[in-house]
Amino acid sequence: MGVRERRPVTSVDVAKRAGVSQSAVSRAFSRTASIAPGTREKILKAAAELDYRPNRIPAIMLSGRSGMVGVVVGGLSNPFYAGALEHLVCSLRERGLQVLLVHVDDALTLDDALEQLLGYRIDAVVTALAIGSKAVAKALDALRIPVICFNSRLTGQWISTVSSNNRAAGVVAARVLRERGVMQPVWLAGALRNAASVARGEGFRRGLGAMAGELVSLQGADTYESGYDAVSAMLLRGVRPDGMFCSNDMMACGAIDALCERAGLSCSRDVMLLGYDNIPQGAWRAYDLTTFDQGVGQLVKTACEVLANALEAGGEPVSQNIVIEARLVERGSTAGG
Amino acid sequence: MGVRERRPVTSVDVAKRAGVSQSAVSRAFSRTASIAPGTREKILKAAAELDYRPNRIPAIMLSGRSGMVGVVVGGLSNPFYAGALEHLVCSLRERGLQVLLVHVDDALTLDDALEQLLGYRIDAVVTALAIGSKAVAKALDALRIPVICFNSRLTGQWISTVSSNNRAAGVVAARVLRERGVMQPVWLAGALRNAASVARGEGFRRGLGAMAGELVSLQGADTYESGYDAVSAMLLRGVRPDGMFCSNDMMACGAIDALCERAGLSCSRDVMLLGYDNIPQGAWRAYDLTTFDQGVGQLVKTACEVLANALEAGGEPVSQNIVIEARLVERGSTAGG
Repeated sequence: MGVRERRPVTSVDVAKRAGVSQSAVSRAFSRTASIAPGTREKILKAAAELDYRPNRIPAIMLSGRSGMVGVVVGGLSNPFYAGALEHLVCSLRERGLQVLLVHVDDALTLDDALEQLLGYRIDAVVTALAIGSKAVAKALDALRIPVICFNSRLTGQWISTVSSNNRAAGVVAARVLRERGVMQPVWLAGALRNAASVARGEGFRRGLGAMAGELVSLQGADTYESGYDAVSAMLLRGVRPDGMFCSNDMMACGAIDALCERAGLSCSRDVMLLGYDNIPQGAWRAYDLTTFDQGVGQLVKTACEVLANALEAGGEPVSQNIVIEARLVERGSTAGG
Repeated sequence: MGVRERRPVTSVDVAKRAGVSQSAVSRAFSRTASIAPGTREKILKAAAELDYRPNRIPAIMLSGRSGMVGVVVGGLSNPFYAGALEHLVCSLRERGLQVLLVHVDDALTLDDALEQLLGYRIDAVVTALAIGSKAVAKALDALRIPVICFNSRLTGQWISTVSSNNRAAGVVAARVLRERGVMQPVWLAGALRNAASVARGEGFRRGLGAMAGELVSLQGADTYESGYDAVSAMLLRGVRPDGMFCSNDMMACGAIDALCERAGLSCSRDVMLLGYDNIPQGAWRAYDLTTFDQGVGQLVKTACEVLANALEAGGEPVSQNIVIEARLVERGSTAGG
C-alpha cells in the first residue's frame, strides 16, 4: 500500500540515534531553519542509516500551511509562458515553496481545479492565465489566500498583479514606426479577453496620433496560426501595410510568414514589424524580430516578493499592483533596407 | 495565521447540516467515489452555506498516499517538453492525481529536489529529463515509489520507461534520404548524454548501409543555437551536405537557418532535411520541416496507464519498458525541387 507503511522510521528514531532532540531533526530537514553544521551532519548520517524520510504532512496538519503554491497555467504552447513557468518553479523553490501545477482551458474548469487544490491546503495561487473575467476574479478571491496574476486586470481583495507596462510599450511601438516613415500601420490584436493585448493596442493607437485614422486593426487569437490567417485575409482584401505591431511574438512570426508567402513582402525591406514577449523563436534567423522584452526574470522575482509579503500578512488580505517597464529589443524586422 | 484556522468547518458539520453521514460528505468531494446526484447536490449546498473546504491532509496522513505525482522536468524551452507537460497534467488530473512540479538543471540538484518531494509523500515520479546517468537512476530507484521515464535508458526495479522507437526512426530517415539520391549525408547529434539521440544516430548509420562511410557527424546540444553553430562550423570546413538528419526539431530549425544564411543553401532545393519531435515551430512556413511525430498524446496516455498499474501493485516494485512507433510527417524540407 502506502509509502509510509514501508518506512515506519520517525524523526524520534533519528533523534535517538543521533543523540539530539526531535526538534533538531526537524530543523536539519528544513531549508530555512538554522542549525550547527556538525549537528546537521550527525543527524543526516543517522537518517541515512535508518533510511528515514522526513514527513511534512503532520506539520501541514497542525499549521494549515503546506508550503505549496498552486500555479495555474493556460497555454504552455506559447514559449513565453513555458519560460515564465520554468523561472517561477525555480524562484519559488529558492524560497522553500513547492509548485502544485494546474492546467485549465477556461474559466469553467478553473473552479473545479481550485477546489481540488484547496484540499491540499495550498498557501497561495500564482496564475499566468492570459484571459480574465469577473467570474475568474470572483473564484480566485473566494479562496481567501494570496493570489498573484501576471499581466491581468483582475481585481480583488486577495488579488495582486504584476504586469509589464503594456500601454507604454504600445506608444513606443508607434513612435518607432512613425520615425521610420510608415504610412499604412496595422495593429494585430490578441485574443478578445486578453487584457494585456487591449492595453498594448490602446497605447499603439494613442502613439500614432494623427495617423491613427489610417490604422487597420486585425483580430488574432494569440497563436502563430491566427497571425498567419489574419494577415493572409488582410492581403486578400488588398491592404498593403508598411508597418505592423503584433500583440505577441507568436502572431508576429505568423504575420511575417504570411507577408512573405502570400505577397512576397519582406520584413523589414517592405514592412517594419514589431512583436511582444521576446520569445526565443523571435531571435531565430528566419524571423529576426524586433520585440518588447517583458523581463520574465524580473516579473517572476517581483511576483515572488509580492507573494512573500502576502504570506507574511498572516491571513489578512493583501492587494498590490506592480507595473514593470518592458524593454525594446531592436532586430532586423525594423532595420529597413 | 494559517488557512485552516480561518475555516474551522469540518466534514462533520457539513454532514449534520445536510442530514447525511460523514462518509457521504467525503464521497461527494471525491472525483472517483460514486454517490447519488441528489445527495451530492444536498451536500454541496450545505458545504457552500458553511463555506466548507474539503481537507485532504488527514487522509494523506492515514494512508501515506497523497494523490500527488512528482513531475521532474529539465528544459521547458523545448516546446516538445512544454507540450508533453501540458498533456501530462491534464491526463493525471483525469485520474484524480495532482502534479507537484520540480525543475532540475542536472543530476546534482535532482537528489535535493526529490528529498523535498518525498516529504509530501508523493505517490510516484514522472520525468522527461533528456539526460540520464547511473547516479540519476540510483537516486530515483532509491525512492521506492513508481518512476516513469520518457525516452530514457534508465533502469531500476522501480523504473518504467515509455519511449518512441528512436532507432527504427533513424533507419527510416536514412531510407528517405537514400531514396532521394542523397550523396553527402550529415547527422546532427543531440546532447552527449541524451540516450534518445544516441539511438536515433545508431539507426541512421545502420539505415545508410554502404553509404555510412560518407557520413559526417556533428555534435549539437539539443538547442536551436547548437544546431546553428554546428552547421555553420561544418560549412566553414567546406562540407556541403545534400541530406541531413537532426536529432531534434530545435536543432533542425537552427540547421536550416545556418544553411540558408551562411551558404545560401535552401531546404529542400539543395538539402533534404529531417528533424524529430514534430514541435509546432517545425510546421511554421519558414521551416516547413519533415520530422518524426512521437505522438505525445499516446506517450503520455501510455505513461499514465503504466503509472496506474504500478500504483495498483500495492507497494511492490514494477518495471515496464514500452516502445511506441514514431510517425514520419513529410513536409517541404524533403520535397525537393
